[in-house]
Amino acid sequence: MRLARIAHPAGVAFASIEGDGDDAQVLEIAEHPFGKPNFTGKRWPLADVRLLAPILPSKVIAVGRNYAKHAAELGNEVPAAPMLFIKPSTTVIGPHAPIRRPAGVGRVDFEGELAVVIGQPVKNVKAEQAKSVILGYTVANDVSARDLQKSDGQWGRAKGFDTFCPLGPWIETTLDPADLSLKAEVDGELKQDGRTSDLVHKIPELVEFVSGVMTLLPGDIILTGTPEGVGPIVDGQQVSITVEGIGTLTNPVVDA
Amino acid sequence: MRLARIAHPAGVAFASIEGDGDDAQVLEIAEHPFGKPNFTGKRWPLADVRLLAPILPSKVIAVGRNYAKHAAELGNEVPAAPMLFIKPSTTVIGPHAPIRRPAGVGRVDFEGELAVVIGQPVKNVKAEQAKSVILGYTVANDVSARDLQKSDGQWGRAKGFDTFCPLGPWIETTLDPADLSLKAEVDGELKQDGRTSDLVHKIPELVEFVSGVMTLLPGDIILTGTPEGVGPIVDGQQVSITVEGIGTLTNPVVDA
Repeated sequence: MRLARIAHPAGVAFASIEGDGDDAQVLEIAEHPFGKPNFTGKRWPLADVRLLAPILPSKVIAVGRNYAKHAAELGNEVPAAPMLFIKPSTTVIGPHAPIRRPAGVGRVDFEGELAVVIGQPVKNVKAEQAKSVILGYTVANDVSARDLQKSDGQWGRAKGFDTFCPLGPWIETTLDPADLSLKAEVDGELKQDGRTSDLVHKIPELVEFVSGVMTLLPGDIILTGTPEGVGPIVDGQQVSITVEGIGTLTNPVVDA
Repeated sequence: MRLARIAHPAGVAFASIEGDGDDAQVLEIAEHPFGKPNFTGKRWPLADVRLLAPILPSKVIAVGRNYAKHAAELGNEVPAAPMLFIKPSTTVIGPHAPIRRPAGVGRVDFEGELAVVIGQPVKNVKAEQAKSVILGYTVANDVSARDLQKSDGQWGRAKGFDTFCPLGPWIETTLDPADLSLKAEVDGELKQDGRTSDLVHKIPELVEFVSGVMTLLPGDIILTGTPEGVGPIVDGQQVSITVEGIGTLTNPVVDA
């Protein structure tokens, strides 16, 4: 199932998307998309609604340096244990919402990532059970103020600006994430071309590791890391991240 | 006003605390404590209720190395800009709830801190207006897995374990935070004895800086940093943080 959050003529709702292209329809979900969703019976053509961030997470846990070639391109080693940092929930925006590049922060980079969406409250999940606590997968852009990341040391600021976590276009609930193509394009030019099979710490291991540290709540996001090819984005550009089997997340970049 | 969150015989509520010692009473607040609270008319002796974390923040933004002597005791420089990191909201516990020391993580330290509680949604507040967006102040313990902090580099794990952010006992809304005594005791032995006047980046500056990065929501917490004297805590100990004009936050430590 493809789960989305939409703005429709009468308000905001979770929804499931059926069909493709011009025939795609959104079916409104009552309440929330966890467990077996209840449908209200309302539906609209996909073209008539606006897609929002598919979930509003209580927290976004990101894993640094989880593709070896990306670690290398920034002159870093792959850490032995997953390197965790938190992006505040106020970083989250949806498809086509502008990434706002703050003044005076230097270089701002896109980082295309596969995002895991947690489906239930969990602590201490074993890797073998990880699949059962995952609602689905979406596409993310872990936008990063690269110069501040270096000068600050801790990444709370560099990774924490409003709009620095585009998510979407929807959550795909039936997907094997083990070996998917992950691409990033800026104004149509291919910049990242990786595969999730190159993740150093795989998704089941990440769910075990993160849930061993902190309780995960429904809708929480684990950003699994970015492959090589990251680079700057500037005012007026469009950045698109595509993960095979999910879709494409596109956002314009504007100076804040 | 002293704002608390309490478990009383009929449920959980925000409340204000009036009076001291054996005469202290808690007055139940309807809904939330932001703006001018509405009281339900229900009240109990303080001794008959249990104090919970006084607020459940959407995010906890912490400032590293914000007292010069603490930076020095761990061999670090004071950073030019406030060094921000995020503690997940799942770290928050209330007074007397146990700090759970995870197995196999090495040294776990207390860090006594003054916490700023935000009172309204804000972005880009100027230092001169900071006071108007602050609900009040509470006491915090920024519990830190010291060995992991060093080995991981990023502090998402070391500072992010469940129970690693005790808050309380309540929020004091009428307080000048500029020069308050801040003490930490472990089993009654004085370990930290600082003053908030030694903050490198002062509270108005921190509110301007953090709100320049991210939207702050009602209840969000800024941890302002810890003075020198941090040290390990182990199973069976009790750690108490006292900030002048607010009160004492005490938590036992147990092995998870």
